[in-house]
Amino acid sequence: MKRVAVFTSGGDAPGMNACIRAVVRGAIYHEVEIFGIRYGYDGMIRGDIFQMSSHSVSNIVQRGGTILKSARSKEFTTPEGRRKAYEQLRKWGIEGLIAIGGDGTFTGASIFYNEYELPTVGAPGTIDNDLYGTDYTIGFDTAVNTALEAIDKIRDTADSHDRVFFIEVMGRDSGYIAIQSGIGGGAELVMVPETLTSVDDVIATLKQGWDRAKTSSIVVVAEGEEEGTAHEIADKVKEHLKQKDLRVTTLGHVQRGGRPSAFDRILASRLGLGALEGLLAGQKNVAAGIINDKLVYTDFKDAISKEKPLNPDLIRMVNILSI
Amino acid sequence: MKRVAVFTSGGDAPGMNACIRAVVRGAIYHEVEIFGIRYGYDGMIRGDIFQMSSHSVSNIVQRGGTILKSARSKEFTTPEGRRKAYEQLRKWGIEGLIAIGGDGTFTGASIFYNEYELPTVGAPGTIDNDLYGTDYTIGFDTAVNTALEAIDKIRDTADSHDRVFFIEVMGRDSGYIAIQSGIGGGAELVMVPETLTSVDDVIATLKQGWDRAKTSSIVVVAEGEEEGTAHEIADKVKEHLKQKDLRVTTLGHVQRGGRPSAFDRILASRLGLGALEGLLAGQKNVAAGIINDKLVYTDFKDAISKEKPLNPDLIRMVNILSI
Amino acid sequence: MKRVAVFTSGGDAPGMNACIRAVVRGAIYHEVEIFGIRYGYDGMIRGDIFQMSSHSVSNIVQRGGTILKSARSKEFTTPEGRRKAYEQLRKWGIEGLIAIGGDGTFTGASIFYNEYELPTVGAPGTIDNDLYGTDYTIGFDTAVNTALEAIDKIRDTADSHDRVFFIEVMGRDSGYIAIQSGIGGGAELVMVPETLTSVDDVIATLKQGWDRAKTSSIVVVAEGEEEGTAHEIADKVKEHLKQKDLRVTTLGHVQRGGRPSAFDRILASRLGLGALEGLLAGQKNVAAGIINDKLVYTDFKDAISKEKPLNPDLIRMVNILSI
Amino acid sequence: MKRVAVFTSGGDAPGMNACIRAVVRGAIYHEVEIFGIRYGYDGMIRGDIFQMSSHSVSNIVQRGGTILKSARSKEFTTPEGRRKAYEQLRKWGIEGLIAIGGDGTFTGASIFYNEYELPTVGAPGTIDNDLYGTDYTIGFDTAVNTALEAIDKIRDTADSHDRVFFIEVMGRDSGYIAIQSGIGGGAELVMVPETLTSVDDVIATLKQGWDRAKTSSIVVVAEGEEEGTAHEIADKVKEHLKQKDLRVTTLGHVQRGGRPSAFDRILASRLGLGALEGLLAGQKNVAAGIINDKLVYTDFKDAISKEKPLNPDLIRMVNILSI
Repeated sequence: MKRVAVFTSGGDAPGMNACIRAVVRGAIYHEVEIFGIRYGYDGMIRGDIFQMSSHSVSNIVQRGGTILKSARSKEFTTPEGRRKAYEQLRKWGIEGLIAIGGDGTFTGASIFYNEYELPTVGAPGTIDNDLYGTDYTIGFDTAVNTALEAIDKIRDTADSHDRVFFIEVMGRDSGYIAIQSGIGGGAELVMVPETLTSVDDVIATLKQGWDRAKTSSIVVVAEGEEEGTAHEIADKVKEHLKQKDLRVTTLGHVQRGGRPSAFDRILASRLGLGALEGLLAGQKNVAAGIINDKLVYTDFKDAISKEKPLNPDLIRMVNILSI
Repeated sequence: MKRVAVFTSGGDAPGMNACIRAVVRGAIYHEVEIFGIRYGYDGMIRGDIFQMSSHSVSNIVQRGGTILKSARSKEFTTPEGRRKAYEQLRKWGIEGLIAIGGDGTFTGASIFYNEYELPTVGAPGTIDNDLYGTDYTIGFDTAVNTALEAIDKIRDTADSHDRVFFIEVMGRDSGYIAIQSGIGGGAELVMVPETLTSVDDVIATLKQGWDRAKTSSIVVVAEGEEEGTAHEIADKVKEHLKQKDLRVTTLGHVQRGGRPSAFDRILASRLGLGALEGLLAGQKNVAAGIINDKLVYTDFKDAISKEKPLNPDLIRMVNILSI
Repeated sequence: MKRVAVFTSGGDAPGMNACIRAVVRGAIYHEVEIFGIRYGYDGMIRGDIFQMSSHSVSNIVQRGGTILKSARSKEFTTPEGRRKAYEQLRKWGIEGLIAIGGDGTFTGASIFYNEYELPTVGAPGTIDNDLYGTDYTIGFDTAVNTALEAIDKIRDTADSHDRVFFIEVMGRDSGYIAIQSGIGGGAELVMVPETLTSVDDVIATLKQGWDRAKTSSIVVVAEGEEEGTAHEIADKVKEHLKQKDLRVTTLGHVQRGGRPSAFDRILASRLGLGALEGLLAGQKNVAAGIINDKLVYTDFKDAISKEKPLNPDLIRMVNILSI
Repeated sequence: MKRVAVFTSGGDAPGMNACIRAVVRGAIYHEVEIFGIRYGYDGMIRGDIFQMSSHSVSNIVQRGGTILKSARSKEFTTPEGRRKAYEQLRKWGIEGLIAIGGDGTFTGASIFYNEYELPTVGAPGTIDNDLYGTDYTIGFDTAVNTALEAIDKIRDTADSHDRVFFIEVMGRDSGYIAIQSGIGGGAELVMVPETLTSVDDVIATLKQGWDRAKTSSIVVVAEGEEEGTAHEIADKVKEHLKQKDLRVTTLGHVQRGGRPSAFDRILASRLGLGALEGLLAGQKNVAAGIINDKLVYTDFKDAISKEKPLNPDLIRMVNILSI
């Protein structure tokens, strides 16, 4: 393999740049020509492709976002779009692809591989950590720390005013960010899509805390919680606790950006290099991952479809630690 | 004067603890007994009062929130409530008060002084910086930096996806946080209560940016903007720019908390010590402030009622710098 | 077991407070009385012991340092000292101990157990990550992020002035902090006690970088590097590269403190709870650890004496990524 | 004036990029062609000059260091060097200069102006804040916050171990960083070049603290302190306090880098725009400054030679607040 291209797709995640850097520098180390594709699958279709050198990735390891830009592509979901993409890649002589992104990215890569058999290896980059085949995804650790920093700040106000705060964190299908930032932030309760917590449970937990003379409380709610958004849950709770000062904060997009943490930079570097070296060694239609500190490759099919459950130890800990 | 009490009231602000520390240590330095009142005027009415020592304020200079807790008191707005408060203070032998807070706090203090003539000096603590009589209020610099950090993070995503972000920052009656975080964050537009910016202006500015090949844009909106919340403005803009990817983030309560910045710790220390030494020197019914790096005292009446306009240089700069 | 005591010993590490909190809350959850010992083994000897409640550990999960204080005890290294310590514990009716600290702490605990057979379980807390029996120790992740943040800042100056910076990070016997902060910070070279890097190698790597048109370089040096301190190495290099602008920074004690990262808070919580629940379940003379995301217990003897090698993947990566 | 050039010189300071951005965007706003000179006076001599556009300064407002690079130039101190520089500028048709830097930069600019009368306006960029003609210099607020963050971290360890820490911060001729970070960090003592503090004073203050049951102490030492470096002072103190655990940390170059604070970005933007608009309005041989929130211009001669004393209120406060 002499020419490889790399792109980022789907929501951006801190550490994507460190991953791109590892792919590019790894390719140069292995004497392979390396190309960048801008704006994910959209750029592939439009031929927004350029050769990268070692200097292309200087001084980016510490930056959030992605220098290759990202987008969600409707056209690539059509056979016609994928055909155009393939022709562009052929025109540039690309023999292998590194796809950095989440399950949408891997789904696209898998369909594309099945149609055109262009060897592709994925690197899991998404703050949600909801991909099977790796213990952690690129960006998750930074997002948790960002959420945690916000919770720490809000606790200052909660404590000063004896308030209850409902804080909504990202995680549409997964409670990873919620459970980790909740434990780290000393939350009284964490509501995640993976477990059932009714509004009655919330009220009971809050009352229990007050019985133990807690004056303020934090409830962390994952975006995808089935009881509703943090605002909706707070409204329901409010009906039963009229005398209490309840507040809501939705952290939103701040969780996607920022300087990646050390953990994310190292994970992203290992996954980027691992994806590239896997591709050169003949891997295809798989995502690189780190499980138990070892590099592994998982079929895109499994990476997309299999569930990665929350560690039950963590769920259990929330109750014990907020006693 | 032999016995002074200090309290915090209204919304908490980073640096309030540094201010309390300066009051307490200053009192001890001047050999005055110092008492803390918990939960502001509410605690005053309930007699939630305790003597403080140098150790009471050890290791708090770096903490957000307020160790004296804060509250908004309905009872203190009644003559009966204020009478109870006065009796409590008399019972404890308090001869002077330091009130740390914003305009609500100073309004209460002023009414109370006019009724009972207990000498009171205020220290301006509010993240909004909307008090006359001081260039900056305690907590403002930290809140701006918190908002700025969030804007920096959101810009990573805005850039990666070529998006327009509307970011709502605090400031019900004042655009100080918005204008400073907007300039610092390189925003394309800042919408503040002090100036009129129509939705048409927003659309024109965004289009102008795209004509100059800007791919992403940030609009910072102050909470008190008369065109509506960031969500409402974004919805109106969206109607005219259907093809664009518009997103909204409301920063919310994270802006109130956190480690105070160096600026806020020093300002809070100067204002706390200045309020105390003013009180001991015979000041009453005034707020301490720092104007042009000098300690000044302003009548509560003026501090509450007079307007502190935004620096027009800053408003002008937004347009020039986002060219 | 009805009465358990917890203490911290050796160098402080961010997350120790989160660990103490988990031990205390876990004990209360399991209806065991929990006592704190101040100043480690010294306090044990002096009987500086007090009962803890759920409130003793409120609002500490986010704080660096240790509320139980720490010290290095000479007296405890004598049989007489340990006898006094045992008598104090007996006086308080303590039936089990949780020891939070590094290898010195565990060595003391092991000798003490062998003499008095008081069941003791350790929780590994040290920024150096040099303990066998756990993938990571409490405080390591925070220390790496602190070092990384410093490297990011220094790189701004290195880049602006085309300089070479030698940055010394902590790690007397172990290159963990150096290798992780070096990879995360995009260092050109990392010098660790585990591998041999001569001054000639340093010079060769720097020259190679300049040949590739790199204008600035970062060399991260672990404290325990056998070629000497960062200052000594820089002096030797300087002799051969007289025309170059070489600078040295020794990060020092900042690496020990600060708000613990999310990773450290969660790790510390799991290890604290795991140590306590192990103790209650009959574990003794062992340290709790997390290996491959699972709670394990390792004999103190092994935890102290066995080596935990650096991941060779990381060592290899430094060269490739700095191409 | 149709063609203006901008450069940075001397030590880099956070906010220099925000200043460059304001110069460039301001020039475009006023329809003036704007050029960047790389590596300060060295680049001027070598003709390392390029035209800048609005995009040249996109996404730099938040970055430390300087995109124009900096250097200290020996050649420019010679008449021959300055002649070469002038010829380069003439070749490019440059009619005015913006010089961002400290007193070395302004000294060079002043000599150059006196020889060739090319209108030059300075913008004060140095973390030391030791320039007359402006209340604050670009980079100072960020440097203080960086030092403060380090002090906060070190306090965690000082508190946990009951230690005395000597922390050396930057400031060769000026105690600004020391006094502000010392007050903000709750230091027991601050040693600055502007005042005399003998080793006996240090010992007396430390003993006084212990008498008041303080268990740990922080002494902040400015780099230019006449009693010696923090290491030397600690060694002298150690001789008289043998039983105490004294530690030293020299913060070093981390204080120069990092994301600029809100304060520095706004100050840098105002000074950059102010320098440019002053130049276009006929100012020459002066530095722009902000005094009492107003833009002013000060002759280079005064900016370099006049002293800016420390605020005596701050010096007094250290003693009172550490009671």
